[in-house]
Amino acid sequence: MAFRKFLPLFDRVLVERLTAETVTKGGIMLPEKAQGKVLQATVVAVGPGSVNQKGNIQPLSVKVGEKVLLPEYGGTKVMLDDKDYFLFRDADILGKYVD
Amino acid sequence: MAFRKFLPLFDRVLVERLTAETVTKGGIMLPEKAQGKVLQATVVAVGPGSVNQKGNIQPLSVKVGEKVLLPEYGGTKVMLDDKDYFLFRDADILGKYVD
Amino acid sequence: MAFRKFLPLFDRVLVERLTAETVTKGGIMLPEKAQGKVLQATVVAVGPGSVNQKGNIQPLSVKVGEKVLLPEYGGTKVMLDDKDYFLFRDADILGKYVD
Amino acid sequence: MAFRKFLPLFDRVLVERLTAETVTKGGIMLPEKAQGKVLQATVVAVGPGSVNQKGNIQPLSVKVGEKVLLPEYGGTKVMLDDKDYFLFRDADILGKYVD
Amino acid sequence: MAFRKFLPLFDRVLVERLTAETVTKGGIMLPEKAQGKVLQATVVAVGPGSVNQKGNIQPLSVKVGEKVLLPEYGGTKVMLDDKDYFLFRDADILGKYVD
Amino acid sequence: MAFRKFLPLFDRVLVERLTAETVTKGGIMLPEKAQGKVLQATVVAVGPGSVNQKGNIQPLSVKVGEKVLLPEYGGTKVMLDDKDYFLFRDADILGKYVD
Amino acid sequence: MAFRKFLPLFDRVLVERLTAETVTKGGIMLPEKAQGKVLQATVVAVGPGSVNQKGNIQPLSVKVGEKVLLPEYGGTKVMLDDKDYFLFRDADILGKYVD
Repeated sequence: MAFRKFLPLFDRVLVERLTAETVTKGGIMLPEKAQGKVLQATVVAVGPGSVNQKGNIQPLSVKVGEKVLLPEYGGTKVMLDDKDYFLFRDADILGKYVD
Repeated sequence: MAFRKFLPLFDRVLVERLTAETVTKGGIMLPEKAQGKVLQATVVAVGPGSVNQKGNIQPLSVKVGEKVLLPEYGGTKVMLDDKDYFLFRDADILGKYVD
Repeated sequence: MAFRKFLPLFDRVLVERLTAETVTKGGIMLPEKAQGKVLQATVVAVGPGSVNQKGNIQPLSVKVGEKVLLPEYGGTKVMLDDKDYFLFRDADILGKYVD
Repeated sequence: MAFRKFLPLFDRVLVERLTAETVTKGGIMLPEKAQGKVLQATVVAVGPGSVNQKGNIQPLSVKVGEKVLLPEYGGTKVMLDDKDYFLFRDADILGKYVD
Repeated sequence: MAFRKFLPLFDRVLVERLTAETVTKGGIMLPEKAQGKVLQATVVAVGPGSVNQKGNIQPLSVKVGEKVLLPEYGGTKVMLDDKDYFLFRDADILGKYVD
Repeated sequence: MAFRKFLPLFDRVLVERLTAETVTKGGIMLPEKAQGKVLQATVVAVGPGSVNQKGNIQPLSVKVGEKVLLPEYGGTKVMLDDKDYFLFRDADILGKYVD
Repeated sequence: MAFRKFLPLFDRVLVERLTAETVTKGGIMLPEKAQGKVLQATVVAVGPGSVNQKGNIQPLSVKVGEKVLLPEYGGTKVMLDDKDYFLFRDADILGKYVD
């Protein structure tokens, strides 16, 4: 896995947007598009979490491999091994698909 | 229930706006409209709650199945299984109808 | 009481603006108007209060039945059983009339 | 006293601007004017104080009857029994005259 | 001293700008001017200090009689007994001259 | 090492952008460019960390020698011994390459 | 030392920008200029530090005599004994040169 080399920092989550129909246990998932952007994605790497005011690390709410719903806007495009990935803050991810 | 597959994150609440007259124990509820948008809705999925400064999870104030009053503005449209739902923050929901 | 069915959330207060002369123990109260809006109102429903940073619920400073003075601006109009009510945040209510 | 009926909320202070020369123990006080507004005033009612982050009530720094110096701007006009009063936040009052 | 009658509130400091050459132990101090405003001043009255988030009073960092350096901008003009004074927040005073 | 002389303060990180192909254990890394700026860099000096609200020092999440991915914008150019370096806040660094 | 008389308040640091070549143990330091302003400076006086939310004093991260790197912008010019000095907040100083 190429991204094993890239570790997001703090509460950032590295995701890969779904492309073609993705077969999941729950059946075929037709990616939902908004302005040409696929909003479903797979989590490929997660940061350690950010530190709250008391100095404790706040664990992220998504794990590697989970399917998530991205907001229409925001995110930072990151190219790794010539492929496009996106970095989102954990708090900006709208929800996840639990099979 | 289609949304059993979709779990909102943090303090987000997934709602479905009421359409036709909805019969409730308290009698028939004619949805109130503002600018063509129905402001009453049913809660269909809730997030785990967000974490406060002390690192404790703040439980949401609405539950699945409750009837709530939405603000006129805000909310994020989410399509699930070809149906329109909306994501609101718990804190933005104005109130709920307790029969 | 129609609003027994509507419970405001967090620190929101549901009020009904005074209309005609309202007879109170303290004598007749002629509603004060600003830009055509009556600024005196009766509290008809209150939320449970909002949660402060320590996770404790902050009780509201007004109770159902009390007469309050509203700010000129702000508030959200809410129609319940075909009557107009208004939602204000507890912190935005200027004061109350204690007989 | 008319305002015994009106209780400001939180950290609000109800004041009445000085009009004519006001005789105080410390001698005659000629009200200082800024843009036609008298900046000296008498405190006529005080709120209970606002709640700090730890949930404790922060007592106000002025008492009923004290003479205070108002800022040039800000304040909310409130009509009570046909007389003009003004609501200021405790933190916005510049100082008080201690005889 | 006229200002004994005026007590600034919270973290406000009442100062009188230096006018002519002021003889201090450390020698003659020629007031530094910026845009015609003298930036050196003497502290004539101090507030009790403001309350921090834990509810404790934060003592001020300047005392009555000390010579301080004011920022070029800010401050509120206050007329007391026909003389001009200025109110600054403790945190806005740049420094003090320690002989 | 020239920068042994320069110690960034608080949570600042001094980095040197990768130039030519940089051979790393993980193989050759072709620097990714955005608007002509190389976004990969090597950490050359780190600050002690900033202090959180409880007065504890928050250690940085990157160490000297690590390869990091910079955001497209932000950063302060610093010239040391006639070479260009850049200062970024720890929290603004997107991620690091872990071989 | 003229500035022994001037004590910056809170977290302010009084610095004197380097002028000609300054000989330091580490060798000759040619001041780096940005828009005609020398960015290296010597710390000549420091404040006691500011108070954090818990009421504890946060010590400064630079000491008198240290060589520091200033940001291009910000700072307040202060004239003391006819010489130009500058006041910066501790948090705005980019770094220091440790020989």
